[in-house]
Formats: sequence, C-alpha cells, structure tokens
Amino acid sequence: MALRVGVIGGGQLARMMIAPAVELGLDLRVLAEDEGMSAGLAATAVGDYHDLDVVRAFVKDVDVVTFDHEHVPQDILRALVADGVAVHPGPDALQFAQDKLLMRARLAELGVPQPEWAPVRDATELQAFLDDHGGRAVVKTPRGGYDGKGVRVVRSGTDAADWFQALADGDALLVEELVGFVRELAQQVARRPGGQAVAYPVVETVQRDGVCAEVLAPAPQASERLVQLAEEIGRSIADGLGVTGMLAVELFETDDERILVNELAMRPHNSGHWSQDGAVTGQFEQHLRAVADLPLGDTTPRAPWSVMINILGGPQDGSLGDRFAAAMAGYPTAKIHTYGKAPRPGRKVGHVNVSGADLDDAVYVARAAAAHFD
Amino acid sequence: MALRVGVIGGGQLARMMIAPAVELGLDLRVLAEDEGMSAGLAATAVGDYHDLDVVRAFVKDVDVVTFDHEHVPQDILRALVADGVAVHPGPDALQFAQDKLLMRARLAELGVPQPEWAPVRDATELQAFLDDHGGRAVVKTPRGGYDGKGVRVVRSGTDAADWFQALADGDALLVEELVGFVRELAQQVARRPGGQAVAYPVVETVQRDGVCAEVLAPAPQASERLVQLAEEIGRSIADGLGVTGMLAVELFETDDERILVNELAMRPHNSGHWSQDGAVTGQFEQHLRAVADLPLGDTTPRAPWSVMINILGGPQDGSLGDRFAAAMAGYPTAKIHTYGKAPRPGRKVGHVNVSGADLDDAVYVARAAAAHFD
Ligand SMILES: Nc1ncnc2c1ncn2[C@@H]1O[C@H](COP(=O)(O)OP(=O)(O)OP(=O)(O)O)[C@@H](O)[C@H]1O
Ligand SMILES: Nc1ncnc2c1ncn2[C@@H]1O[C@H](COP(=O)(O)OP(=O)(O)OP(=O)(O)O)[C@@H](O)[C@H]1O
Ligand SMILES: [Mg+2]
Ligand SMILES: [Mg+2]
Repeated sequence: MALRVGVIGGGQLARMMIAPAVELGLDLRVLAEDEGMSAGLAATAVGDYHDLDVVRAFVKDVDVVTFDHEHVPQDILRALVADGVAVHPGPDALQFAQDKLLMRARLAELGVPQPEWAPVRDATELQAFLDDHGGRAVVKTPRGGYDGKGVRVVRSGTDAADWFQALADGDALLVEELVGFVRELAQQVARRPGGQAVAYPVVETVQRDGVCAEVLAPAPQASERLVQLAEEIGRSIADGLGVTGMLAVELFETDDERILVNELAMRPHNSGHWSQDGAVTGQFEQHLRAVADLPLGDTTPRAPWSVMINILGGPQDGSLGDRFAAAMAGYPTAKIHTYGKAPRPGRKVGHVNVSGADLDDAVYVARAAAAHFD
Repeated sequence: MALRVGVIGGGQLARMMIAPAVELGLDLRVLAEDEGMSAGLAATAVGDYHDLDVVRAFVKDVDVVTFDHEHVPQDILRALVADGVAVHPGPDALQFAQDKLLMRARLAELGVPQPEWAPVRDATELQAFLDDHGGRAVVKTPRGGYDGKGVRVVRSGTDAADWFQALADGDALLVEELVGFVRELAQQVARRPGGQAVAYPVVETVQRDGVCAEVLAPAPQASERLVQLAEEIGRSIADGLGVTGMLAVELFETDDERILVNELAMRPHNSGHWSQDGAVTGQFEQHLRAVADLPLGDTTPRAPWSVMINILGGPQDGSLGDRFAAAMAGYPTAKIHTYGKAPRPGRKVGHVNVSGADLDDAVYVARAAAAHFD
C-alpha cells in the first residue's frame, strides 16, 4: 500500500505536489475548497476546512496530513492531533506562521535577529512607537495577510484607524520598524519529524506591489558569511519551533550586512519554486519526503544560477494557452509551470524557471518568456 | 479550456506523462486496460483497446490521441483517423514500430544502415540465410515482441520450428545477421506534426537477459562523428516515416565504427528515462509537447553525465516502500521513480536516475541505490 498524504487546500502548492508524489509513489489526496481548483486532479474531497466534520472525514483515509496554506484554524488542527492524526507541520509550529505577533515573541525568545517591533492596541500606542522610530513604521494585521495585504507603511498613529477599529477585544496589531533593507532574501529548510534537516542555498526575492515577482537562486553576490548566517537562522527556527516539512524564512538584508527575519511560511513557498527545475530535489518533493518522514533529498543546485519569474494576472487578449505556446516557441530552455487557474489581473497563474551558467542570460530568458503574459 | 491529451494504455509510460502534463497545464486522460494500473490517477476510462467502440467512446472527449505502447491494432487506428481524430504517432508511422519486417523493408528504402535481414517462411529459407551468414543468426517474430521475448539466436533452420508452426498463412519471420556489436546505443528524436524536430544526445544502453538494465547519457567515449551519425539516422527516420511524438532508434555500434539500426519505438522509451532529471526537457514532457503540437523544449543535458538503472522484480523481503526509504537514505542525489506496480520477479517496477560531473561516481551511486531492490 502506498503511503497516503492528505493535503488540506487545493491551490497551486497542492497542485505542484502531484508531480513528485506520482514519481515517489505516494498516494496524494487533496481536500479542495471547490470543484475545479488547481489541484483538482488529486482532489478526493471538496469541502470547508473550517468544518471539523469535513476535515475529520477527509483525514480518515490518509496516513499524514499537510497543507496548501496556513489558514486551517488551530482548534481544528488540535482536534486532529487529539484524534491521533499525524499533522505536519503540527499546530504548535504552525501557530507561528499563522500569527505574526506570536512569531515575533517566539523569535525574540530564540534570539533570532528581527526588526524592532511591538504589539499596538490603539493610535496612541502606535504613535509612541513612531516617535521612537523616526516617525515611520510598518503596521501589520497579525493574521490572514498575504501578498502584502495586511501590511501598511504608516507615518501617524491614525494611519491604521480602520484596522484598530476592526480589532476584536484584547487583540493587537503588530508594528515594526521600517527596515531600510538593501534586498530581500529567503532561506528554506526542510525538516523531518525526527529532526533531520537540510537547507537550500539562500535566494534573493524581488517583490513588486507587495507580491513576489522574481527569485534569483542562489542569492547573487552573497558572501560566505551571509550564506552561513542565513542557513543558521533557518535551521535554528526549524529546530526551535519544531517545524516539519518545508520552512521558508523571509529575510531583509541591511546595508550593514545584518539579516533580519521578516516572516515565516511552513509549506512550499514561492521563493522555492526555482528548485523544481534548478535543484536536485525540488521543494515540493522535499516537502512530501519530510511530512511522510522519508529521508530528505539533496538540495544542491543543478546549475550555477536559476531564475524564477511569476506569471501574474490574465492576458489582455489571446488565450493563456496561446501565450504559453508563444513563450515556449521563443524560449525552449524556459520551464513553464501553470496552475490551471482562471486568469485575473494580479493573480498568480503560473511561473517560469530558467537555469544556466550565466545569471544575466538566465534573467533575460526568464523575463523574455514571462513577458508573453504581460 | 486546457488541451485534452488522451493516452491509450495505462502503464508506466502513461504514468510518467502525468507530472509534465500537470505542469504544462494539459488535461491528460488515460484509457487503462484495468483498474489500479500505473497511470490510474489519470485514468478516465477502463477498457479494451482492441474494441473500437471502447476506443471511440474514449477519444470523443480528447483533442489528440497518443499511446503508452504500440499494440493498438492498425484497423482501430485507421478508423479513428477516418473519424477525424488527431492520432500521434499516426498509423502510417506506427506500423513500422509494430512490425519489424515492415520496418526492415522501409529502412532499406530509406537507405538507413541496418543488419542484413530477410523474411523467412520455413526452416529451409532460414537454413539458406544461415549458410550465407556464417551459420548463426537472430530470428524475430515481427510483431508483439518486447523485452527480448520474440528474439532468438539460431544455428540451424530447425531452431525456430515452433515459431514457424505458429505462423499464420502467408506470414514470415524476420531473420537478421548476428551482429557482433561492441555496444548498444539509442538515439531519440521528438517531432511535431509540422516537422519541427529536436534530437537528444545518443546514449549507451546495457541490456541484461534481453531487458534494458542501464543507460549512460550521453554515450561515453562517443566520437563527434558517431554522435552526428546517430542524430542524422534518428532525424532521417523521424522525417522519412513521418513520426510524431518521441521516436527511439535502438542501434548497434560495431567494432568498425558503423552503426546499424536494431529497432524503433514511437513513444517515450526506457533509454530516455534519464532525461526526466538529466535534461532540460524530459522525454515525457517532450512527447506531450510534440503530440499536442506545442513548441519543443531544449534537449541539452543538465549535467555532464546521467545514469539510469531499472529496478526489476520484487524485493525478497521487506516492502517496496522500505526499500525505497533505504535507498533514499543512503543516496540523497538519487532520483527514484516508482511505477505503482505490484512487484514480480523481472518486472520493471521503477528506475533510479543519478546525474553528476563524474561518470564513475554517477554509475556507482545509481547502482548502489538500485542494489537496495535486488
Ligand atoms: N518591517 C518592514 N520594513 C520594511 N519593509 C517591510 C517590513 N515588513 C514588510 N515589508 C515589506 O512588505 C512585504 C510584505 O510583508 P509581509 O511578508 O510581512 O506580508 P505578507 O502579506 O505576509 O506577504 P507575502 O504573503 O507576500 O509574503 C515584504 O516582503 C517587504 O517588502
Ligand atoms: N541482429 C542482432 N544481432 C545481435 N543481437 C541482436 C540482434 N537483434 C537483437 N539483438 C539483441 O536482442 C535484444 C532484443 O532485440 P529487439 O530489440 O529486437 O527485441 P525486443 O523484444 O523488441 O526488445 P525490447 O522490447 O527490449 O527493446 C537487442 O537489444 C540485442 O541485444
Ligand atoms: Mg511575506
Ligand atoms: Mg529492443
């Protein structure tokens, strides 16, 4: 009998687990939110992951549970664990990817370098933080943010009035110093339940309009010291929080060569898509190995440089299929990955990976191929 | 709407099309012979491909038809073409992969180098061929052979008496000179309906007990001349026969640096499994691109050397899953591909790919990983 891995959530991350699951001989089963989602091919159930009965029925037929996203509520996760289900990552780890305030407090305990931060309950507290930090800061809703939604640069205590108003009693927003970073990085680590862990090389991520646009792997011009520091931070968070599966640590590199943790994701991450084609073991295969408690794979890059570019939104005219064909015709080395989603402006509908010996060439080809979708 | 590619046959070749189909956004649909076959995840129908009604019902909902094997009868294929269905490879090409006598005659017309051969109807004709060829030859059943079944070395006209007896009226066996080859090679070419074609580097294949055991890619110590000659032969056959999709040309290399065509396969082939991990575009992705008439991908190797080793038969003790885990633990660079088949001695149940800068290292690691299955 093949090991059955259940994935809650039917988006593109679950979809991209299908290919390695087939090759590894794992029986992938997906609980999708709707019919016709990205991971539809492997969807064995459709239902609401907020409903414990739905989730319980789904996990009855799997050996281990993992996730396409971080939105499954803690009470559902804890009920599964109480039922004796193997959940990876488990709720004790996942809470730190679900709540940025919990994460900041825990990283502080672990002594991991991060921006200065505080919980703020109202405009007065926010103004006090601003006064201490040069009059500018970043306010974040601790839960439910993605693609930059729930992140706002503020200059006055009243700039987050709407968010304060929407807060439940006793809740707080997160405020952080506005980091003058020179670039953003991401460090990925995979960790098995027993503690075996492997790290990928740190990569550079470029965001546009709050969304990851491009990834360069490994991070260009990274000193040996930076590479080691990023790996150490990644490993200490994976161990410290007891993460199982893939962990992505989003980082800021400052102009004085410090690196500060921005946030955590405990699943395959956009910053790791390059590894599908650019590393001996892609992150989706690695995540499956880790959550299924199989030995981890080699993380060595297959080429000196790999570049990933997201394909956002929909074409103005011409079908997505025609665009893909045009990109393939022009760029036979470009690896195109599509998510089977209806195109909508700004929505991630696929990505392109290009690897090669020359970084500028790889960037050029990846951009040129992706430009067919602008 | 995603392009729908229908595959007749639910074996491991159809299974290994699933991964690239998901990434390319193609809707793969498989007509499997039985429930629970290798390509079960993508099986949208189960039925007998000898039954025209079954096949017609299956192809109603696809845009193009291709194959997991070469066994679909010509009359079924021709009926589909008459119905207006896009069949790749088409029956006019496929007949030369289905019938070794037809192939020999057509390759002779094309002037492609091949062993001396003749059709033989009885022991007298076979003895005459033997007398002209040093008393030894290879007799083959023209149709339905695989993995060396249907191939026999003979020294006397009566050595194939059983096969002659089983021949239908008017049919013949194929006899070939026994080639004293120094090694076996395979050349792969992908060709689109419009004629665009790309070639992979020629590889060395090692058979054991008539079954492909190991593949070394590219073929070690191949001279520039040999590489070019193999590519030219592959391209001229693909063009000459109007092949669409992947073509594999099995070759003998002789000690006087000639290469002779052994036989043809018009589908992804065991000699091309290395490309899943070892080339920019794997043969399963390439086959899908070609039959779906999408631009072909780059065939450049991702590493200087890639080695493929088949996993045959079943473990004596311990589950296949445990064996995989042990192989993964020892060899994190080994890419393990499983076919989801019940293990049986001698049956191909998976393969291992290893790539690297050093051929001996890659061979060592691949053999060591595969040894967990002996
Ligand atoms: N303290 C900060 N200083 C400067 N810039 C910041 C800070 N925090 C966040 N940003 C910027 O905003 C982006 C989004 O922030 P964050 O990653 O916390 O939000 P998110 O909505 O969870 O994003 P995503 O889901 O896209 O990763 C960061 O990638 C960075 O560019
Ligand atoms: N003329 C020949 N001279 C010497 N050896 C031969 C000859 N023909 C075939 N062989 C040997 O027998 C093997 C099997 O032959 P062939 O490929 O024709 O059969 P098959 O059953 O179609 O094999 P498969 O399906 O494994 O490719 C060849 O790979 C080669 O090792
Ligand atoms: Mg972020
Ligand atoms: Mg053969």
